[in-house]
Amino acid sequence: MNVEWIAVDWGTSNLRVWVMNAQGDVIDHLTSDQGMGILTRDGFEPALLSLIDGYLSTDRITPVICCGMVGARQGWVEAPYSAVPCSPAGYDQAVLVGPTDPRISVYILPGLSQQSPADVMRGEETQIAGYLAQSPNFDGVICLPGTHTKWAHISAAEVVSFKTYMTGEMFSLLCSASVLRHSVGGDDWDDDAFLAALDQIYSRPQSLAGDLFSLRANDLLSSVNAGQSRAALSGMLIGMELAAARPYWLGQAVVLIGAPNMVDLYRKALAHLGAMVLPDTANDVTLHGLQAAYAIYKDAQT
Amino acid sequence: MNVEWIAVDWGTSNLRVWVMNAQGDVIDHLTSDQGMGILTRDGFEPALLSLIDGYLSTDRITPVICCGMVGARQGWVEAPYSAVPCSPAGYDQAVLVGPTDPRISVYILPGLSQQSPADVMRGEETQIAGYLAQSPNFDGVICLPGTHTKWAHISAAEVVSFKTYMTGEMFSLLCSASVLRHSVGGDDWDDDAFLAALDQIYSRPQSLAGDLFSLRANDLLSSVNAGQSRAALSGMLIGMELAAARPYWLGQAVVLIGAPNMVDLYRKALAHLGAMVLPDTANDVTLHGLQAAYAIYKDAQT
Repeated sequence: MNVEWIAVDWGTSNLRVWVMNAQGDVIDHLTSDQGMGILTRDGFEPALLSLIDGYLSTDRITPVICCGMVGARQGWVEAPYSAVPCSPAGYDQAVLVGPTDPRISVYILPGLSQQSPADVMRGEETQIAGYLAQSPNFDGVICLPGTHTKWAHISAAEVVSFKTYMTGEMFSLLCSASVLRHSVGGDDWDDDAFLAALDQIYSRPQSLAGDLFSLRANDLLSSVNAGQSRAALSGMLIGMELAAARPYWLGQAVVLIGAPNMVDLYRKALAHLGAMVLPDTANDVTLHGLQAAYAIYKDAQT
Repeated sequence: MNVEWIAVDWGTSNLRVWVMNAQGDVIDHLTSDQGMGILTRDGFEPALLSLIDGYLSTDRITPVICCGMVGARQGWVEAPYSAVPCSPAGYDQAVLVGPTDPRISVYILPGLSQQSPADVMRGEETQIAGYLAQSPNFDGVICLPGTHTKWAHISAAEVVSFKTYMTGEMFSLLCSASVLRHSVGGDDWDDDAFLAALDQIYSRPQSLAGDLFSLRANDLLSSVNAGQSRAALSGMLIGMELAAARPYWLGQAVVLIGAPNMVDLYRKALAHLGAMVLPDTANDVTLHGLQAAYAIYKDAQT
């Protein structure tokens, strides 16, 4: 089968594996729900082997390059952070996990840290590295919407500074566990409500906790469509983030990387505020980032 | 035993009952965890009777006056809202629950509503009525900190306008269910961190979602004391509320009503911002409010 190495994206909720050949092609792509969040320290190796065991050989040691929350304090082995400004492709600071099954040697890539204002990322740096592998001359801002949205300022192939917003996590908590859950259920959506709420909080961010309750009160008094309320909730939270992140996007070329529905939402919001969002060209950035790390690994072996 | 009537404060989490005699004294005070949140519609009467059955007589019908979430859409019977401006002591719009056990007649007091900006309250209006029963000439602002903090502007014994902030609910969700739960546990507290975070968000409310994540990042990079982080989280959320509620407290006499630890926290925060908080004189406001409603009920019977 000619397996050369194995690329692993191991987040809080999911484990994703690509089995790679020497030509840089993907032989197989495997996933499981054995994310960092549900594993104890001695559960990582079995979870990995259960996916890749059939691709391992006793004739040689297969390198496994991992990124993401697998390197967190609650992960397999705590990998250090590289302090910005630095390159996001950090194989040279990777941690060798050991001892493991003799057929593999497992490396965990570092996250990035910033001292002031204090910030950290694990996993997104590899996506950024993957984007830069495809667009090596990019100078500007990369925004990665998600549970913890990251904004990173890129210059000369380095992450210069970055900032995390808990926007996605607040949205999912408010949707599922707060009193608003009675008013925002279902799959409907309303772009006008999204943009109106965005404007409202963008200009008066301090109103958030009050405007959130108004969603519930409006529904109790006037039976508002749930999709309208959910879009407004999303618009408020993203509006607050974009007000704070203004120094990142104002007058900058912004690239969005993430799940298509989130990228779409941020694209609408940023366009509404007059930001310059570049066309969507980022593909398979995590795998490209792991490939960039593997290239550095290989150079270091020779 | 000379039971004249029964006062009931029935919230989302708790059921509290006072058994009253004709002289206005409390014969007994009983509580249970049978709050509205865990009851189905036909569970309310048994939950009430299990507390008061021993105090009922077959010789006369005992009036039971209830306030709180028992009158919500998910409650025993939906009680209407009285639209502000209006008196908070709303027996004249109470709903008679029927049919019930022949020994009782149960009334549920209305909540208050406001059309624009849309807002509602259930339960706090009775606390306000109880405060006004003790301070009938009060003109100013009453703030009731809690899961959903209410600010109410009082003039000429009426609630003129009010505003709800989801501050308390956001605090408890972020503490218990977000990534911050790893950094804010335990019972420690730090007043300086509370006030510093209050100032920070008061002047830059849009930074909330970013500053929240900094609590986690700071802890990961520099091992911050959990009490300091929890106090900062609280300071951020209360700081955002006080920035939005400024038109309520600025230049107004503010009365705080609520759980002692919450009142204490808001007192510190408001004093820090130079607001004029009146000394704490509010006692047993819910019972006083129910007594005010019962007095109107009795007048209506004669």
